[in-house]
Amino acid sequence: MTEIRVLKVGGSVLTDKTRLESARIEEIGRIAAEIAGCGPGLILVHGAGSFGHFHAERYRLAERFDPEGVLETHRSVVRLNDLVVEGLRRAGSSPVPVHPLSSVLLKDGRIEAMEVGPILEMVKRGLIPVLHGDVSMDLIRGAAIVSGDQLVSHLARAVKPGIVALGTAVDGVISDGKVLPMVRRADISRIASELGPSAGVDVTGGMGGKMRELLDLAEGGVSSVIFNASRPGLIERALRGERVGTLVEGRR
Amino acid sequence: MTEIRVLKVGGSVLTDKTRLESARIEEIGRIAAEIAGCGPGLILVHGAGSFGHFHAERYRLAERFDPEGVLETHRSVVRLNDLVVEGLRRAGSSPVPVHPLSSVLLKDGRIEAMEVGPILEMVKRGLIPVLHGDVSMDLIRGAAIVSGDQLVSHLARAVKPGIVALGTAVDGVISDGKVLPMVRRADISRIASELGPSAGVDVTGGMGGKMRELLDLAEGGVSSVIFNASRPGLIERALRGERVGTLVEGRR
Repeated sequence: MTEIRVLKVGGSVLTDKTRLESARIEEIGRIAAEIAGCGPGLILVHGAGSFGHFHAERYRLAERFDPEGVLETHRSVVRLNDLVVEGLRRAGSSPVPVHPLSSVLLKDGRIEAMEVGPILEMVKRGLIPVLHGDVSMDLIRGAAIVSGDQLVSHLARAVKPGIVALGTAVDGVISDGKVLPMVRRADISRIASELGPSAGVDVTGGMGGKMRELLDLAEGGVSSVIFNASRPGLIERALRGERVGTLVEGRR
Repeated sequence: MTEIRVLKVGGSVLTDKTRLESARIEEIGRIAAEIAGCGPGLILVHGAGSFGHFHAERYRLAERFDPEGVLETHRSVVRLNDLVVEGLRRAGSSPVPVHPLSSVLLKDGRIEAMEVGPILEMVKRGLIPVLHGDVSMDLIRGAAIVSGDQLVSHLARAVKPGIVALGTAVDGVISDGKVLPMVRRADISRIASELGPSAGVDVTGGMGGKMRELLDLAEGGVSSVIFNASRPGLIERALRGERVGTLVEGRR
């Protein structure tokens, strides 16, 4: 079987995070074309951006359980997921949507259970499962946000992919104005604490949250790259295993 | 915790099975109002009717794996699911969609794995999970149809509900022109073999398939009722535990 690759594309790449449900349709098309050029063996996870985040804030999902908030937040992110799936289909791929609200159970904000069997079978059959940041049920809080980053981290531990690539709207992990070519496990906590949230509304922790997920991943021995998916060509290069952005090195 | 009830509403109740994607919007509204009157503790499963079945036939999903067929069949049933969820919301319930393509893995057409944790948490929190007949990934066939009836049977074994009610467009199990008030486990195989498919296009086995699922359920000790959900008031009565249609008696 083809080696599995996990690609995350951030919400700030696919949407204008400062404006409600504002998808960058041309960017979605461009990214879909890059993915179509990379062959089978891919799990795609995308962020929610200005779909979902606004609703999660409006219904204060981080603070309280709100049935209407669960439905409206989910519906919003599904609208973005529909656009991504349609973009991939038009580019000649065989995408299928996978919704965390249907398949993920959280415990205090962390994934407690997730059915990955269908996702593996999709990849095996040449389909591209397309997951997204979502609201999911939570044993402690009733419901909570599960970020695309946490999904990537969980999937990576479950399926041991050959490549884990996180496409963001920045060039990688930046320290003192420079992109770090590599971050070792020991550096991650220090860097995470220095990093603030990403631009616009974000209920999932921004770059700090991302680094904490990658720390988890690195602890499990899985290396990943953080790169700029807004720059044409980098998704293809990342999926081919080329060094782009910052390499986050897992335990050897 | 409130006792869990599982209600299936057949595709022939919600749609005109002879015409492509033809939803009976007024019926959906009427059924949503009946469900809203029945309080919390409900898992709803609906059939695909003329959403999905036509696509499954067109792409010959029963015979071969077709990536486009998987996506288009799923999209079609999700359109019906959206209408059901919206009907419930308008009637004052707190529905959330749950898609089997995301959470169910089949093996030669039977459910091999399914994440039910989120569904249980939804019920516990007063939400109504709304599942539907769908296409799902299959370890043997690549993909296959998972009927609403099979979902009901699986859920009933997993969550041991107090009430399992299957609403169809007929009055119950009919033999010699009469509705049987009760069917015992020993009778089920014989009756199933006598029953043909339901009216219109149906890729999931019609009443014969339904009875085979209920046989499974009865073997596991769970009783169920098959009744006419097109008759106003019967959903409410079935969910209150009143005797409507045909009782299929589980092992004592």
